[in-house]
Amino acid sequence: MIRHREGDYRWKGIDVHPYKEDGTIFKSVTRQTLFHGADDLAVELRYFEVGVDGHTTLERHQHAHLVTIIRGSGEVLVGDQISKIQTHDVVHVPPFTWHQFRATNSEELGFLCVVNPVRDRPQRPGPEELIELNSNEDVAGFIRV
Amino acid sequence: MIRHREGDYRWKGIDVHPYKEDGTIFKSVTRQTLFHGADDLAVELRYFEVGVDGHTTLERHQHAHLVTIIRGSGEVLVGDQISKIQTHDVVHVPPFTWHQFRATNSEELGFLCVVNPVRDRPQRPGPEELIELNSNEDVAGFIRV
Repeated sequence: MIRHREGDYRWKGIDVHPYKEDGTIFKSVTRQTLFHGADDLAVELRYFEVGVDGHTTLERHQHAHLVTIIRGSGEVLVGDQISKIQTHDVVHVPPFTWHQFRATNSEELGFLCVVNPVRDRPQRPGPEELIELNSNEDVAGFIRV
Repeated sequence: MIRHREGDYRWKGIDVHPYKEDGTIFKSVTRQTLFHGADDLAVELRYFEVGVDGHTTLERHQHAHLVTIIRGSGEVLVGDQISKIQTHDVVHVPPFTWHQFRATNSEELGFLCVVNPVRDRPQRPGPEELIELNSNEDVAGFIRV
């Protein structure tokens, strides 16, 4: 019932996986799943770590994310807002909202992410969505696709 | 959508409350609620901090807890198991399982706790349950009631 940490940002008995297995566009991100949902808690708890200068996939989906930074700092895009984030900041990504995490601060960006175990597949921006995203200068400068 | 931290283990716009308002037996514990549940995430995210030598209430209830330590270290009772816990350990408290967190290590013990927003009231041990709990020598030495 206890997942003990083992070393820094690793847990006993938990494998470290690539962020995604589907070849989606990301850079230097690992994933560890710490809880798979049980009882009245319909949530998974995952730890993602973005290496220096890395980024998660720019995507959106119907399911929400609840993210708590526990390592380092960086920046996040949620919708059309770009925000600096640091350890212990809490980020709520609402449904169908473009989001991307980047480790822009010369250190790893590690975060816990709570998510529903039953969820839709993420969508990546197509050509039309990219035109719309790029129409905002700040967003255009931030996103990595 | 972002709860920025403000100082250490405090968040902008989030009030610090006593752990419980009902006079239950606890010592030196504060509570901050960081997320109230939204979209497909039927969870609250709370941060609890147990001061040096403090403890949460010994209790059990039908709803489960998913706890991640983010400050310091200490010990926890889950069922009849007492475990040392440190920052980034993840503790799953299953339904109807006695549990108590103690800051036994001369430092604060701070943890995030994911819980269902719809949940039953905690039960404290009555005289008969206390006899049973105390029949285990390790448990008897650990619990604070």
